[in-house]
Amino acid sequence: MAIHTLKPTPEQYSYVFGGSKPLLSVKPGDIVEVSTEDCYGGRVNSPDDLPSEVVPFAELNPVSGPIEVEGAEVGDVLAVHFISIVPARPYAVSSTFPHFGALTPTHETSMLSAPLEERVWFYDIDLDSWTATFRARNSDYELSLPLDPMHGTVGVAPASGEVRLVVTPSTHGGNMDTPEVRAGTTLYLPVNVPGAMLSLGDGHARQGEGEVCGTGLESAMNSVIAVDVVKDGALSWPRLEDDEYIMSTGSVRPLEDAYRISQTDLIGWASELTGLDTLDAYQLVSQLGLAPAANVCDPNYTMLAKLPKWALKSAEAYGGVHRRLRAAAEDYSA
Amino acid sequence: MAIHTLKPTPEQYSYVFGGSKPLLSVKPGDIVEVSTEDCYGGRVNSPDDLPSEVVPFAELNPVSGPIEVEGAEVGDVLAVHFISIVPARPYAVSSTFPHFGALTPTHETSMLSAPLEERVWFYDIDLDSWTATFRARNSDYELSLPLDPMHGTVGVAPASGEVRLVVTPSTHGGNMDTPEVRAGTTLYLPVNVPGAMLSLGDGHARQGEGEVCGTGLESAMNSVIAVDVVKDGALSWPRLEDDEYIMSTGSVRPLEDAYRISQTDLIGWASELTGLDTLDAYQLVSQLGLAPAANVCDPNYTMLAKLPKWALKSAEAYGGVHRRLRAAAEDYSA
Amino acid sequence: MAIHTLKPTPEQYSYVFGGSKPLLSVKPGDIVEVSTEDCYGGRVNSPDDLPSEVVPFAELNPVSGPIEVEGAEVGDVLAVHFISIVPARPYAVSSTFPHFGALTPTHETSMLSAPLEERVWFYDIDLDSWTATFRARNSDYELSLPLDPMHGTVGVAPASGEVRLVVTPSTHGGNMDTPEVRAGTTLYLPVNVPGAMLSLGDGHARQGEGEVCGTGLESAMNSVIAVDVVKDGALSWPRLEDDEYIMSTGSVRPLEDAYRISQTDLIGWASELTGLDTLDAYQLVSQLGLAPAANVCDPNYTMLAKLPKWALKSAEAYGGVHRRLRAAAEDYSA
Amino acid sequence: MAIHTLKPTPEQYSYVFGGSKPLLSVKPGDIVEVSTEDCYGGRVNSPDDLPSEVVPFAELNPVSGPIEVEGAEVGDVLAVHFISIVPARPYAVSSTFPHFGALTPTHETSMLSAPLEERVWFYDIDLDSWTATFRARNSDYELSLPLDPMHGTVGVAPASGEVRLVVTPSTHGGNMDTPEVRAGTTLYLPVNVPGAMLSLGDGHARQGEGEVCGTGLESAMNSVIAVDVVKDGALSWPRLEDDEYIMSTGSVRPLEDAYRISQTDLIGWASELTGLDTLDAYQLVSQLGLAPAANVCDPNYTMLAKLPKWALKSAEAYGGVHRRLRAAAEDYSA
Repeated sequence: MAIHTLKPTPEQYSYVFGGSKPLLSVKPGDIVEVSTEDCYGGRVNSPDDLPSEVVPFAELNPVSGPIEVEGAEVGDVLAVHFISIVPARPYAVSSTFPHFGALTPTHETSMLSAPLEERVWFYDIDLDSWTATFRARNSDYELSLPLDPMHGTVGVAPASGEVRLVVTPSTHGGNMDTPEVRAGTTLYLPVNVPGAMLSLGDGHARQGEGEVCGTGLESAMNSVIAVDVVKDGALSWPRLEDDEYIMSTGSVRPLEDAYRISQTDLIGWASELTGLDTLDAYQLVSQLGLAPAANVCDPNYTMLAKLPKWALKSAEAYGGVHRRLRAAAEDYSA
Repeated sequence: MAIHTLKPTPEQYSYVFGGSKPLLSVKPGDIVEVSTEDCYGGRVNSPDDLPSEVVPFAELNPVSGPIEVEGAEVGDVLAVHFISIVPARPYAVSSTFPHFGALTPTHETSMLSAPLEERVWFYDIDLDSWTATFRARNSDYELSLPLDPMHGTVGVAPASGEVRLVVTPSTHGGNMDTPEVRAGTTLYLPVNVPGAMLSLGDGHARQGEGEVCGTGLESAMNSVIAVDVVKDGALSWPRLEDDEYIMSTGSVRPLEDAYRISQTDLIGWASELTGLDTLDAYQLVSQLGLAPAANVCDPNYTMLAKLPKWALKSAEAYGGVHRRLRAAAEDYSA
Repeated sequence: MAIHTLKPTPEQYSYVFGGSKPLLSVKPGDIVEVSTEDCYGGRVNSPDDLPSEVVPFAELNPVSGPIEVEGAEVGDVLAVHFISIVPARPYAVSSTFPHFGALTPTHETSMLSAPLEERVWFYDIDLDSWTATFRARNSDYELSLPLDPMHGTVGVAPASGEVRLVVTPSTHGGNMDTPEVRAGTTLYLPVNVPGAMLSLGDGHARQGEGEVCGTGLESAMNSVIAVDVVKDGALSWPRLEDDEYIMSTGSVRPLEDAYRISQTDLIGWASELTGLDTLDAYQLVSQLGLAPAANVCDPNYTMLAKLPKWALKSAEAYGGVHRRLRAAAEDYSA
Repeated sequence: MAIHTLKPTPEQYSYVFGGSKPLLSVKPGDIVEVSTEDCYGGRVNSPDDLPSEVVPFAELNPVSGPIEVEGAEVGDVLAVHFISIVPARPYAVSSTFPHFGALTPTHETSMLSAPLEERVWFYDIDLDSWTATFRARNSDYELSLPLDPMHGTVGVAPASGEVRLVVTPSTHGGNMDTPEVRAGTTLYLPVNVPGAMLSLGDGHARQGEGEVCGTGLESAMNSVIAVDVVKDGALSWPRLEDDEYIMSTGSVRPLEDAYRISQTDLIGWASELTGLDTLDAYQLVSQLGLAPAANVCDPNYTMLAKLPKWALKSAEAYGGVHRRLRAAAEDYSA
């Protein structure tokens, strides 16, 4: 097991998944200390910097990578375990953005009425108290929020030679914007090209479910990940696992189809792990499953389907890779 | 404060919201001990009773009511606090149903392919251990699930003289099928006609988020509710409150519009309670809000938007009616 | 065959389908000369009358009826043939309306951004030249448009005791807002209650497909209809027939589900009329069918599916009732 | 003006838009005689060849191209005029396909129920009578259908370095599957990379609106196109023009958002051509516009918005390029 460092220079940031040369090559089991820029490319430095004015559209949401994982072959599963995700600056930034977010006309939900006002919020980040401070722009309201750092964008090269903008989540992962991609979680991604070609970015110091205004507490991050490869795992959509839950995702529109994909996938996964037939697994997930929104603002919406692991009894996903990576993470941190 | 009992006879059950004479009349602050039948009208008595064969379509999902709340006037808010919800039989029933559920063609998502198989599951209910036992139909898998009893259908007479089938949730409440309608929760409903005309039913011993197969652990219930009236509350959509969260709902299709309604409503409510302007409240909800699916199977889908009450500081919704009803519930139970 | 007249007084107009006493009782084969008010209740009398200010919400879209058709029984099909639809005033009115229309936030597609401006257009109606004159409000553009009068709202009492607002189209018909409901067309509606209880209104001197701004050239109408009853026709959704096409409708959200319903229904209908099996009928409709939007602004959206009648060879829908009503219409007009 | 020929060899066919070297380079005003393969890559040679068995998934829907148009710069508009589209074989093929089509569970509208049966239909193509003969598979029904040849897939390299599968229509065009891309139509596409990089394929001898089963009368084609470049045209979405209509497109899910995009675009276009302000143009399109479905089966759905050109009075789109290409087409054909 080796420990690598990936600190991209500004010109090394990438804005697509697929079609790029790797910045780093690692082996299954290796650990990577990776720094990521915020979704504004670090260009919003005060509440008066309007993102639509200071960030070129093509330079939104930079990702660090790709990281090539040696030996990962098409049809394998890439396991990405998040050991730690720590805000890199003493502030995080959030904003509305013209034609972006769930509650304003957008490029997809196109309307003739005017978009919502663009406004920027700065949050103080305090790593000691593990909080971020919300300050209202139009009143004196202040509130201290617990940090819950995560990466909004994590993905691999898409299948069939596609190259996709970082902003659009799909089967390759990407901009799913779920708060579940936090330290302690393992993300499973399909390997579509040799080496998988993992990239990540879009750190949020915290985020609500749905990311309704279009942004979280956007933050450059210092993160540590461990990667591993499960042979012949055959994955249709990204999955996640933490100590409590297995989780499936679906990223598409409309939102009920994202729900349908995530539920169908979770039912298949539960069936495979428990030996239940499909309808029995459907029944079990119907009564025990959770279904939070991840994002309802990106070009594809993301829903999660979660099942508590105690319902699986002794079954372990992917031969226990999450448990092993969790242990490796503890070794690293110790 | 009076304590009333409502035990409808079979022919007294109702299948619509609106247009009916009250079965009971109560005063604000009163308590009602109410029994409700399961969604199958109690007709599914063994795993071999297929619902589509033993339950007439027009007699699905009976509700108990309406209950007239004296003094409730158009424009008021009806507060319904759930003191207790207890399964009335030693078993609960769940099933698929032809053309119903999120993962099969339905009357709305109409397709040429065949619907999913109809299958029935019986769960043993044990009130002592507060569990239900899942038994797979096609394997030996058994699993003990914690009870989390709730009412899937609670609503009032709709506005403008409409009469709606119990199965369709909308602005008047109805079949929202959210697990949040549990003991300890206060549900706020708009008063559209004098007396509000509250009905409830569709008890579930528990349910996953989204109710993906179309049914929960369907169970006749013995429930106790307290009702109150908030004058001039002006509510567009049902809201909920428990000790931890305020919650807004939206019930419509597609699912992203249900999400939009619930988020817009929660942002407006948070703005009103905190004095934040709309965009500042949008920002706060974006970072702190939860967004679970309630149902993704009924004629309208329901999403919830939840905000932790600590974010409101000292503000209380509707003058603290939840807190007072909670206290009254403790008196009742003592 | 009798000829009846229905000219409701202002207080006789209805705002719901279902639950009302008939204004008129007719026999199958009878003709009714019916006058209908415009969707504004005749209250918008100049371009300065903003509908949201001069029309109470509960009095939008009045309909004339119900008309009881004697002998129509549950499970029959009501055939409504439009003999003529003639604008009753020398002008028609169109407008935007706050939170209504496809390209502005609405009560269903709820947003925080401001709704579109409310604006009213008056069109001169000239029955001699059979034209309406469009006059831009903010420039000198004028354009003469051909009249194509139609009724946006035609329906019967819903099933299962429901009472629905006139504005929401569904299985009982209602506010489908399709330009195909013009003179020469026969509309088939399910009979859900004895007597069917037909109501109609919402005349448009013309309308584009989708009714994107939310209104057509709203016009009081003098219309003549012939009604007939087909026994045991068993209809799930409203259908239409003119001399060229059979047409199915679906009214639901999202729009793809309205499309799915209309296509599924048309395929079933074509299969029944041609003896093709379902997949062969699917294939034929896939290659010959038309699929225009009707409305994309009402609480349910409506899509049409159309198949040219020559594809049916000699088969006739409902025993040729359209052909017979067409002949009766010619007798009446002669 | 030069006349070019493009007859790709099997290994030259492309399955993506973007990222490819041109097969041919032409100048604005040039004509290209291009042959295209059918969507099955010519591999379905009898009704017993099931597409899912004989066509590798990655080789569905080959396109001919890219064709580089010299001088086309980012921000220009590429005008592609279809001079003729003629079926190249004496038969066309249609089929259902597992998990594809509007009326069966798909990868996006994911369900647990079984997909629809896969079935293949062969149509005889007769160029003399300009007909295709439908033969039912499960009965004796035969029907002669008029040909109306079109290309389902026409597009350019996407913006921002994206590479997209041919099957997904979006802002770059692609698999829009509208019957309006027929001889006599000019298609306007945004130029996102120098040379535009035009590709086309997926010929249909005819197709219904919505392409509900997922395929048209799939046919290899011999087509002739003329290409031109409009400087600084700035196009958000593909547009079309024929002698009767200007047409906007939107390709996204859900279908109402495709409708919204197409309508918003058409209103903007009409406003620009007539000088009407946005709301006046909204009004005009609301009353005169047509809104047919193009496809409701591909990963993005496509709606069209059409406005009759007489409503524009003397205004001409893009300086009359359609009229000039129409004239050039007549010269070529003469």
